[in-house]
Amino acid sequence: MGEFELIRQYFQPLAGNARKGQLVLGPGDDCAVQRVPPGRDLVFSVDTLVEGVHFPLQYSPDYLGWRALAVATSDLAAMGAEPVCFTLALTLPVAEPGWLAGFSEGLAKASSAFGIALAGGDTTRGPLTISLQVHGTVVQGLALRRSGAKPGDFVCVTGPLGDAGAALDYLDARKPTPMQQALLSRYHYPQPRLDLGQALVGKASSAIDISDGLLADLQHILDASNVGAELDAAKVPLSEALVQLKGRDAVTLALSAGDDYELCVTIAPQVLAGLDQQVRDRLTIVGQVHREPGLRVVGAGGGMETRGFDHFGRSA
Amino acid sequence: MGEFELIRQYFQPLAGNARKGQLVLGPGDDCAVQRVPPGRDLVFSVDTLVEGVHFPLQYSPDYLGWRALAVATSDLAAMGAEPVCFTLALTLPVAEPGWLAGFSEGLAKASSAFGIALAGGDTTRGPLTISLQVHGTVVQGLALRRSGAKPGDFVCVTGPLGDAGAALDYLDARKPTPMQQALLSRYHYPQPRLDLGQALVGKASSAIDISDGLLADLQHILDASNVGAELDAAKVPLSEALVQLKGRDAVTLALSAGDDYELCVTIAPQVLAGLDQQVRDRLTIVGQVHREPGLRVVGAGGGMETRGFDHFGRSA
Repeated sequence: MGEFELIRQYFQPLAGNARKGQLVLGPGDDCAVQRVPPGRDLVFSVDTLVEGVHFPLQYSPDYLGWRALAVATSDLAAMGAEPVCFTLALTLPVAEPGWLAGFSEGLAKASSAFGIALAGGDTTRGPLTISLQVHGTVVQGLALRRSGAKPGDFVCVTGPLGDAGAALDYLDARKPTPMQQALLSRYHYPQPRLDLGQALVGKASSAIDISDGLLADLQHILDASNVGAELDAAKVPLSEALVQLKGRDAVTLALSAGDDYELCVTIAPQVLAGLDQQVRDRLTIVGQVHREPGLRVVGAGGGMETRGFDHFGRSA
Repeated sequence: MGEFELIRQYFQPLAGNARKGQLVLGPGDDCAVQRVPPGRDLVFSVDTLVEGVHFPLQYSPDYLGWRALAVATSDLAAMGAEPVCFTLALTLPVAEPGWLAGFSEGLAKASSAFGIALAGGDTTRGPLTISLQVHGTVVQGLALRRSGAKPGDFVCVTGPLGDAGAALDYLDARKPTPMQQALLSRYHYPQPRLDLGQALVGKASSAIDISDGLLADLQHILDASNVGAELDAAKVPLSEALVQLKGRDAVTLALSAGDDYELCVTIAPQVLAGLDQQVRDRLTIVGQVHREPGLRVVGAGGGMETRGFDHFGRSA
């Protein structure tokens, strides 16, 4: 048995989590086969993580496995899709059993948590690079896009921001405090907001997941929708750990740091008012869409206009 | 505009070749959206190419663009699928305009030739690595698999083998002869056998594309189908260029060299006899499936038993 047959053994168990028979044929043939239920669209996205660029050198393989699948699956959440399966294109300098065991374990935990099964992949030798493509489905024509925001819509986020960005300062901490640990777990174990994304299908006018920071990602919505917005920085939800540890920098982190993988959505006020209470309770209104282009931030020590971010390495 | 926005401009034109409206939403949102026609299954495969492993350092970007998409699309041919769209996960050390123009041009030619549109992707900085995932569709339940070969079936191939493997000797030729050029074009511009794959849906009992060499890939069919086969090496089709340039090594190359991307299929004799003449004419019978496991090769200077190949870097 070759080195790469061995690798496949680590990942084969991940093929078992297929949702309701939608994965007709999993790994091992020239292609995988997925059956999309009648009346639903296939929704898919690919994300690449490169060592030293998207995650630190010597990053724990267990964290990496979870993070890689969570980050990709977050794009399904942003479309309101239900996850089905994923492919893994894994390029490795060497097949190191300890690393493979950790990575496949992190991946397996995420696969099970999100209900997404391994459908296939490709294993090659080279510098450590992980490309994950996730597949989900959504009712035909109802995928949440970036382009539907309308003047008057509220801008909402699904949870506290800035934690993952702040955690970067503690990645090397040998014995993190409980508060540092709270931030670190946001970085190591992002939670794609799948349930909220699905609950907002047919309700939200646009959606995006926050991977580059609220300002940058909201700007993507505004650009795609050809509108502007006013954002009240004082309303952006902050965790207690972030406020305690970062003080005056907390708001800046919440606006500009990425990796939190909450959703940013726009939604008409009357639609927001009609949402189930349990969905409504998890949305925080942080601003409002306007006809005039541009993103105006208030409530952060005076108004500030923001424009332009260079989104290096974003998926399209 | 950032460096990677620029890159996207090179690839944006490739999003235009969508088949019959099946690509509902292309690049630019969190996910792409594909609508699978009623009664059809989604078929997909990912392939990674790493510089220095799967293609030579300093390989022409134009060839690379074609090759990358052709190699991936060949997996759709092997399932009998009709191509629809693909994603591109491109990792680059630097955004060099000359390279990008060549690569996107090669990719565009293949995209147009195979009728497969760019649906999305991810562009990241790092060592040159290309992961392409191709999507196609096939009538529900009829995707050609590796696992259906039955004792008595003929083993057939769709064209001459060994050319691409022989071409490796001439990659550095400054002024290749016409015969060398004939082999080189098989290596640089592989032609996935999409029409034949589709014509064999519901007819062939199993199929695989020949990327690792006939012996290795036929063995995959035998393993998946739990059968054996006898292969007549004297019947394997050889191009005139291969015979002229490689003499006695031609048969060995045809049996063992990869990269030709012809199909190897198994098909019951009575089904083969009933095929349209134009399909039948493109199949060459090279052997027959037997109940006893193992692959026995005859007609190559005495019988030889073959077993076991380590398929480094094959997609699953």
